[in-house]
Amino acid sequence: MLNFNYNVSTRIFFGRNSIEHLGDELKQYGTRVLFVSGQGSIKKTGLYDTVIDIFSQNGLVYHELSGVQPNPRISLVRQGVRLCRDHDIQCIVAVGGGSVIDSAKTIATGYYHDGDPWDLFVLGDASVKKALPIGTVLTFSGTGSEMNGNAVISNEETTEKLAIHKDVLRPRFSILDPTYTFSMSENQTAAGTVDIFSHILEQYFSPTRDAFLQNRLAEGLLKTCIQYGPVALEAPRDYEARAQLMWTSSIALNGLLGYGRVSDWATHGVEHALSAMFDVTHGVGLAILTPYWMELVLSDETMSKFVEYARNVWMITGNNDRTVAKEGIEKTREFFTALGMPQKLRDVGVTQNALVVMVEKAVVHGDLGKFKKLGKPEILSLLNNAF
Amino acid sequence: MLNFNYNVSTRIFFGRNSIEHLGDELKQYGTRVLFVSGQGSIKKTGLYDTVIDIFSQNGLVYHELSGVQPNPRISLVRQGVRLCRDHDIQCIVAVGGGSVIDSAKTIATGYYHDGDPWDLFVLGDASVKKALPIGTVLTFSGTGSEMNGNAVISNEETTEKLAIHKDVLRPRFSILDPTYTFSMSENQTAAGTVDIFSHILEQYFSPTRDAFLQNRLAEGLLKTCIQYGPVALEAPRDYEARAQLMWTSSIALNGLLGYGRVSDWATHGVEHALSAMFDVTHGVGLAILTPYWMELVLSDETMSKFVEYARNVWMITGNNDRTVAKEGIEKTREFFTALGMPQKLRDVGVTQNALVVMVEKAVVHGDLGKFKKLGKPEILSLLNNAF
Repeated sequence: MLNFNYNVSTRIFFGRNSIEHLGDELKQYGTRVLFVSGQGSIKKTGLYDTVIDIFSQNGLVYHELSGVQPNPRISLVRQGVRLCRDHDIQCIVAVGGGSVIDSAKTIATGYYHDGDPWDLFVLGDASVKKALPIGTVLTFSGTGSEMNGNAVISNEETTEKLAIHKDVLRPRFSILDPTYTFSMSENQTAAGTVDIFSHILEQYFSPTRDAFLQNRLAEGLLKTCIQYGPVALEAPRDYEARAQLMWTSSIALNGLLGYGRVSDWATHGVEHALSAMFDVTHGVGLAILTPYWMELVLSDETMSKFVEYARNVWMITGNNDRTVAKEGIEKTREFFTALGMPQKLRDVGVTQNALVVMVEKAVVHGDLGKFKKLGKPEILSLLNNAF
Repeated sequence: MLNFNYNVSTRIFFGRNSIEHLGDELKQYGTRVLFVSGQGSIKKTGLYDTVIDIFSQNGLVYHELSGVQPNPRISLVRQGVRLCRDHDIQCIVAVGGGSVIDSAKTIATGYYHDGDPWDLFVLGDASVKKALPIGTVLTFSGTGSEMNGNAVISNEETTEKLAIHKDVLRPRFSILDPTYTFSMSENQTAAGTVDIFSHILEQYFSPTRDAFLQNRLAEGLLKTCIQYGPVALEAPRDYEARAQLMWTSSIALNGLLGYGRVSDWATHGVEHALSAMFDVTHGVGLAILTPYWMELVLSDETMSKFVEYARNVWMITGNNDRTVAKEGIEKTREFFTALGMPQKLRDVGVTQNALVVMVEKAVVHGDLGKFKKLGKPEILSLLNNAF
């Protein structure tokens, strides 16, 4: 096990009616709140009114920033920073999914940054030093942003999609009520499940051999996705399925699986280049790319990890390692397909001549991958196979 | 999944040389420190000198309370509270295992309690309201006290052993360097491993049926104990084995496995009565009692949980549920025995006429167990079987 500093400080209020904690939590940070939300679904479900009522009952003054899109844009973040400065905001509450939360995080640190908030993504994590406190009310399971210090933002002018990671960006608290995810569409549910699954795989496929505990925890979370993803798709109002996916999503990326080992993240790197150019849903991009990534990096050297995965997660038996490993990859592809995910990049509007540009965007910060290093030729190969 | 409020705020510095964080962490809370330790083993290993040097380099003034024993006593806690008041202590650092940490926690909250600190154990958790900040440097894997808000203290006058649980008792930080556990004796290593294993089982054997994720995580941790307990026993300086056990120990009881479901804790309840009367090592008591507890509560009603345990943890196959379940219990007993644990209460000096008294002590706060309720007759039966 490698050395690590553990800090998972986000308080979670989990379960039906956990919104009742919102007022008390927010009041700890002040009375002037920025309320960040997405494209209006919370007005349909009534959650918007609930939140406004809580502000009013607790004497909180709020300003609103709505309209956050999937693959959230730096332009809206800039608006948010201005609002925070104009109104001397003390705390930000994000009501929505990962895009809303990531926007809120970037506003929270952009508030303390003298220049343009996009600078922080270009300069990297070291430039992120301070942030306004944020809290979240989660309506979408998948990104894990509700319990970590990551934010991914797209720049529509440069068609870049970049990430920052810092503990100061961790939400102080998150309200996780599984009933708020009942309204996730079929496609969102499937893509969210793939996103969780992929977050786990990125850490499971690690070059760190000594990570027994982390591997067993990861397998437990993967099995939970396999068990409950299809249930949530079939029965969107199944509380237990939604609860299991919601909590798995948070744990999958809060640090627990990654502490003590190196993680890979090559597939995410390629997907960010993809969705920056084609505005593909993140989980959909991951569903297409992941099995091709597995096929690309499977070799004699990496075989044992794939066998471990196939045996422990998919319960595949047999003596021939290569056959077992390949069955594990095939099971992964079948799982994503059964959730309704496409298998090819061409199915989501990607054009073949864009692949070379995508490679360049993917390596903007250098080669990808730690389990297996991917340079430009390997990434192009991956994209061609997935096309 | 049941509703829960998650709060695992303890910062962990894990790995070789993580002691280097001690000074900076302590300085956040002030300059006057109470240094709590055990029976001198840290002087032999050199850790004592390292800690003193760090105090000196960081301008920290310290007062010492050493001599904490296993099954730590309230009398020493009282001394600690007096020291804190006399010297206006701002922060407590516990260097040792669970007994040292539990003593430090009780001193930390006793400092704010007007009466005798034992009152808090009699009055229960609601009486614990505030505590001095504490940090720990762990030298013993097993109790999990380094990352939770629990403290168990013995009263030598009343031969009671009682617990308090409150988030304010969670250490602010813990330094987990696996090399500090190289000096654990064979018996300590074995008993510590059983203690971890038992903490997981107490949460795994739950009446909450909907806990898929929690069950899979628990199975991962149980497998880690099975994998690395024997390695650490065989090769006390095996870094990876010590690291895996150390981190498993912390995760096993920091809340992660218990959030969202009801836990059992009957075996711990009986063991506390046992070790209050006979000063048996906690893990040794658990090793004896656990298989008998399993045999006692196995029934048609509880069968499916035992089958889940046997199949997923011990990989037992076969179609007859009762046979599978019993094999799982037998595997558990064999595991403890292979670690060198005794099988019978008589082997650790317990006298048969004490069993009835032990029952009374065990039910002082009411019946035990949530997976299966144990009243006085069932507890007596358990003790007689284990005698």
